[in-house]
Amino acid sequence: MKRILVDELVEGMDSLVLLRGWIHKIKSFGKFAFVFLRDKTGVVQLVMEEEEILSQLKLEMSVEVKGVPVKNEKAPGGIEIQVKEIEIIGKTYYDLLPFSINEKKVKATLETELDYRYISLRRPDRRAVFKVQEEIVAAFKQYFKGEGFHEIHTPKIIASGTEGGSEMFTVNYFDRRAFLAQSPQFYKQMMAGAGFESVFEVGHAYRAELHNTWRHLNEYVSLDIETAFIKDENDLMELETGFLKDLIQHLKETCGKELEMYGITLPEIKEIPKIPLAEAQRILLEEYDKKSPAGNIDAEGEILFSQYIQEEYKSDFVFLTKYPASKRPVYTMPDQQCEGATRSFDLIYKGLEITTGGQRIHDYEMLRDNMIRFQLNPEDFGFYLDSFRYGMPPHGGFAIGLERLTMKLLELENIRAATLLPRDMNRMIP
Amino acid sequence: MKRILVDELVEGMDSLVLLRGWIHKIKSFGKFAFVFLRDKTGVVQLVMEEEEILSQLKLEMSVEVKGVPVKNEKAPGGIEIQVKEIEIIGKTYYDLLPFSINEKKVKATLETELDYRYISLRRPDRRAVFKVQEEIVAAFKQYFKGEGFHEIHTPKIIASGTEGGSEMFTVNYFDRRAFLAQSPQFYKQMMAGAGFESVFEVGHAYRAELHNTWRHLNEYVSLDIETAFIKDENDLMELETGFLKDLIQHLKETCGKELEMYGITLPEIKEIPKIPLAEAQRILLEEYDKKSPAGNIDAEGEILFSQYIQEEYKSDFVFLTKYPASKRPVYTMPDQQCEGATRSFDLIYKGLEITTGGQRIHDYEMLRDNMIRFQLNPEDFGFYLDSFRYGMPPHGGFAIGLERLTMKLLELENIRAATLLPRDMNRMIP
Repeated sequence: MKRILVDELVEGMDSLVLLRGWIHKIKSFGKFAFVFLRDKTGVVQLVMEEEEILSQLKLEMSVEVKGVPVKNEKAPGGIEIQVKEIEIIGKTYYDLLPFSINEKKVKATLETELDYRYISLRRPDRRAVFKVQEEIVAAFKQYFKGEGFHEIHTPKIIASGTEGGSEMFTVNYFDRRAFLAQSPQFYKQMMAGAGFESVFEVGHAYRAELHNTWRHLNEYVSLDIETAFIKDENDLMELETGFLKDLIQHLKETCGKELEMYGITLPEIKEIPKIPLAEAQRILLEEYDKKSPAGNIDAEGEILFSQYIQEEYKSDFVFLTKYPASKRPVYTMPDQQCEGATRSFDLIYKGLEITTGGQRIHDYEMLRDNMIRFQLNPEDFGFYLDSFRYGMPPHGGFAIGLERLTMKLLELENIRAATLLPRDMNRMIP
Repeated sequence: MKRILVDELVEGMDSLVLLRGWIHKIKSFGKFAFVFLRDKTGVVQLVMEEEEILSQLKLEMSVEVKGVPVKNEKAPGGIEIQVKEIEIIGKTYYDLLPFSINEKKVKATLETELDYRYISLRRPDRRAVFKVQEEIVAAFKQYFKGEGFHEIHTPKIIASGTEGGSEMFTVNYFDRRAFLAQSPQFYKQMMAGAGFESVFEVGHAYRAELHNTWRHLNEYVSLDIETAFIKDENDLMELETGFLKDLIQHLKETCGKELEMYGITLPEIKEIPKIPLAEAQRILLEEYDKKSPAGNIDAEGEILFSQYIQEEYKSDFVFLTKYPASKRPVYTMPDQQCEGATRSFDLIYKGLEITTGGQRIHDYEMLRDNMIRFQLNPEDFGFYLDSFRYGMPPHGGFAIGLERLTMKLLELENIRAATLLPRDMNRMIP
């Protein structure tokens, strides 16, 4: 007998069906009981009369049920199951659940939920976050494959930490010291130049930052792209806009139920405003009396500026452009038309930076000279600099933080809620 | 003017087109020259007459070309470009290429090719390997999504190395010691139990094994699945067979050109034989006079046994089943019908193990008792064992080594050739 899922139950099935899942809730009325069975697709009401087996059932046990679906307008979904047989297939060994999961709200802190991920994720609303996350990744791959990009997998164990060594985790690699990659930056550039032209990667990135905030993770999933033969950074912002437009459409088609759980209506994206950083800083000062650090805006500035963009442009997104060279990595392409600025950008979404990107320097001599200007030693860059000797074409790319995008799409308050098993300064378990 | 790709050139285009790519080859005939332009899709012949610019061209430069495509039966692809304008957009800074890449064979060792990945990958046949790899991943996701599986991303930085701590890399995680995950084993089991039921992950796995062989990597991509509510390990072997059938079909549809480059004809998969390990050991001894280690077969045994299966069953694949409990991890489900054996299996493909899988113990007490039997301390397993207290259903899964599968599909001799940027005991660069 083939298992049927809860969301496959329809009216008019009068024959025996086989269900499997967990005991979600028990409502006993003496001689009979409503037992709610939960599987990955939903919850259905079982009607049970045998006291002997009823007395053995405990919340969250795994069971296999044979029964007949019948119409009952009062039951959730309009169908209930008259149980003929029930078998316990996964026993429980607990006195009390760490927190109740069959009520409207979880009466536990986020920290406790994370400690017991194997319990909290049994709630459909908690799993919904990861359904949305899964579909973000699916939309990302689909869009960029459609644009002729190739998927790559690059090493996370790397030999040197030239792109900001102080914020990298070190690994003991046999008898040598290695690092965990902060990003696939060097490798994705290399692969664009090595003939793939356009590449993407969905992979972990590691930051040993000493932050423990609502928006930082020490291990996160980065959606990276890099593409050759671009004209300038505008090509990249156009690509990202195209992806985000597709993403909204894709999520509406695949995650209707999940978005509803979080009360989210996704607006269509038309155009994303592009504002030079200096202009954004001026607006923040004039409109909100908010001062910004040199060459950037801070977390509070991002929130205020997003409010401004929402009011002025009715957009959840805004590109900040023309960051100063002094605040961007050494490989960032200078903007010849704008003294001291680069062809780089950030994307701010509902008050949070979710992307950094830009055109890269592709000329070997220009890159080497820039390293010297940055007081870096070109010899430290080994294979990376060397790969620019062989006709590297103009190129650029960007990276999207998957958990940040998920968090903001669902308007969650903490990035850990958008992470299956977060890693931060205090948390390595589970 | 929009760029056109080489493989988009067709006969009858008489107007000006814009091409971008690398200088693949130059054949000079004094007053004119054939210059071959290579982009990610192919190579086209340019006809050039201007000596001045010709003298500046160097192999592997990036260029932008405007020209008119005309028919020429002698040109590769039957079309050549009469060049009107050519511009160098990516300069070269080398005296000699490390090795020639426009000849039929690469005159360099694999090690040299890997040292210069940014050169060797410019060869279409080298990139072809990763096109196949990309499509393996695409087929994997498509198949398992179709089967109701959910994609997950689990941490690679983990707190304890209970699944064989001696072969793990250690990470300095702030002021603590952490490990790089050998597999997502514990987490994928946890997620199957936490209500996702069926999950897959495409992610890096790390093995600090002191091997440097043609089939070992210290960092590799693992295609992992785990699924709840199974009957036994046969459900898993059926799933993997289904995937492999789909994969062959998918590769035929998407990688025709690439398979041809390697002279590969992929046979359709009908059924994959399942042979108990003890039976395989007996056959190896009787047919090949080959002795096997206790509870396993070695690398030579895998090759010989694959030959046997090819002769007897006309199959490239064979499942070895019923491994003894003493040779499998502590969480492996014992086979009640076969004394000392477990419900686990390996999949051997053309003489190489590409999968290990099996049903897991899902009962808390049984798992705890098995830990004690294995002389392990249940307390060391913390959250993992704890997650079995809450109605863990019967479940199991398997993992496929992506690079191993790629290597064997294309009949490459070394796993490093199927790895973009391999990590082994000696190699951390590039």
